[in-house]
Amino acid sequence: MKIQNIETPALLLDIDVFNNNVNKMMEKLRNKKVKLRPHFKTHKCTEISKILIERGAKGITCSKLSEAEVLAEAGIQDILIANQIVDPVKIERLTQLSRKSKITVCVDCKENIDKLSEIAKKNGVVLFCLIEFDLGMSRCGVDTFEEVLELAKIINASDNLELEGIQAYAGHNSHVLDNEKREETAIHLENKIANLKKYLNDNNIKINQISGGSTGTSYIDANSDNYTELQAGSFVYMDREYTRLNSDYKCALTVLSSIISVHKDRIVTDTGAKSCSTEQGLPVIRELPEASIGLSEEHGTIKVKNHNYKLLDKISYIPTHCCTTINLYDKMYIVKDDEVLDIYRVDGSHKSM
Amino acid sequence: MKIQNIETPALLLDIDVFNNNVNKMMEKLRNKKVKLRPHFKTHKCTEISKILIERGAKGITCSKLSEAEVLAEAGIQDILIANQIVDPVKIERLTQLSRKSKITVCVDCKENIDKLSEIAKKNGVVLFCLIEFDLGMSRCGVDTFEEVLELAKIINASDNLELEGIQAYAGHNSHVLDNEKREETAIHLENKIANLKKYLNDNNIKINQISGGSTGTSYIDANSDNYTELQAGSFVYMDREYTRLNSDYKCALTVLSSIISVHKDRIVTDTGAKSCSTEQGLPVIRELPEASIGLSEEHGTIKVKNHNYKLLDKISYIPTHCCTTINLYDKMYIVKDDEVLDIYRVDGSHKSM
Repeated sequence: MKIQNIETPALLLDIDVFNNNVNKMMEKLRNKKVKLRPHFKTHKCTEISKILIERGAKGITCSKLSEAEVLAEAGIQDILIANQIVDPVKIERLTQLSRKSKITVCVDCKENIDKLSEIAKKNGVVLFCLIEFDLGMSRCGVDTFEEVLELAKIINASDNLELEGIQAYAGHNSHVLDNEKREETAIHLENKIANLKKYLNDNNIKINQISGGSTGTSYIDANSDNYTELQAGSFVYMDREYTRLNSDYKCALTVLSSIISVHKDRIVTDTGAKSCSTEQGLPVIRELPEASIGLSEEHGTIKVKNHNYKLLDKISYIPTHCCTTINLYDKMYIVKDDEVLDIYRVDGSHKSM
Repeated sequence: MKIQNIETPALLLDIDVFNNNVNKMMEKLRNKKVKLRPHFKTHKCTEISKILIERGAKGITCSKLSEAEVLAEAGIQDILIANQIVDPVKIERLTQLSRKSKITVCVDCKENIDKLSEIAKKNGVVLFCLIEFDLGMSRCGVDTFEEVLELAKIINASDNLELEGIQAYAGHNSHVLDNEKREETAIHLENKIANLKKYLNDNNIKINQISGGSTGTSYIDANSDNYTELQAGSFVYMDREYTRLNSDYKCALTVLSSIISVHKDRIVTDTGAKSCSTEQGLPVIRELPEASIGLSEEHGTIKVKNHNYKLLDKISYIPTHCCTTINLYDKMYIVKDDEVLDIYRVDGSHKSM
């Protein structure tokens, strides 16, 4: 099938750009201590998860239990939920998953650790834990070395739990536009993590993994002596927001739109905010990068003068935020030049529970 | 089931508030010429469509072919797609739908009218058309009376098409905060529509329906001598953005969240931007309306001091925009006080094609 014949709005993945992005990341990690554990919250598609594992990823990161369930169902063997699972009903489901795959989950308080241990023991499975250490995001995670040590001792004394290591994610530093500032902060945080590692070691706490890192700092984190896994997700697809950092990665994901109304001063497409997320700002039109645009729920309005566009012509949007745009779709067209090579199910879409 | 036992994040509809909103709208329209044709792009749930028809709505408005398909499948007999359907593949599907329900669609150019007629004729069905007249949104629609007349003549001369009337939607006026300005504009546009109606009448063009109007101007449009149907959608659920207009309608829709991490200065919930839309701004916490909040994709951070919140306590978000929030869900809990009365499928969710 030709791209021209796709019903719109539709999500397109340029396979050459995607492959190039993945190659660039794997090149950065070649012969490094740090392994890749890409984030499912971006790619939302187990076909892509499998490709990333074939190319060298050690496993997959995700945010939610429902995402982990999709990954386990697809046969992914090593899954990190980079988040807290605290509801006993969800912990019950988590222990069921751990019969299929190695499941690691983040913790930041004793009460949750006790509940994880209780339900894992009852169901005769082992859950792996990362203690979340807050590097300045002020979200989940404990703030001090002493708290990490305290939780580590609790996990080591708990039945059916294994202390795997530390979650140290600095997402707040990933979108800092000034390269120098971003690098300075990354190195400062890296030192903090090194100190935490030493502190735990001095207190006889053994940790296997330090997990964190993001697309925006991947070129720094790849050379880390401390991180063992990189949770970067956006590099596979990229978006307008991330390309402001001038990274090596290029936008592989676009929303194909059709013109449904033609005027002297504007064209109107069938793609609005329900087909291209706008919470980080408006997308850019690939063919008209300078054009002023507006997006209502189901319409996109593009201001153009002296144009030759006609009804049903195709237009491509480059999303501002790939993670929330892919979440609006159930399928993705895999394209090369003008041809559709395949259609992948976006089977991780709408899984926010 | 008690609300406390719902797995989160979850969408909750307070049935008392919903009923009150619907009653208030129907009261405004009692003994009026204007009938209600509520917009599916907001409620996204055919159970709600059926309730609205039982309470007096004449039919349902929607934005997309895929929404119309869901509505027809659910047995809704009178469906308006308040949008242009121009792709021949979609027009083919549209004509299939018109075997189940009365289908009306908007048009704003000859090329589209010709294609609708051709395919409707081929398939032996009749499609009803509204000519879209632009009231200042600068989206789809023609700008002048003369263009409306020209398209009306073309439709009247086309096989298998019926000219139903005019689509005159002034969404740009619906969110104007200043009541006086909003009313002034509504009256100005009402005069414009009256003039258009007279112009068409003088030119022997018969029109049955003038469709438009929105929640923000519903109290004005309900008294119109020109509009025959009101497309208001948001009044059923409402949201933070719309309540700024100080209308009679109250927020019936909330996102139930659980606390997954507790700190001295903040609580963190399991509800982020993938469970509560933020493209029109951040939601408000019902229990902590003054609190400063942050939303990343899967986390909500709420700044609180000297609090007693504990792990797994429930928090309710009032979305800024109901239409894009409900689009993130597959089901909705119908609640009254602390009890879950029912669960409705959000069967119109993710239908943006």
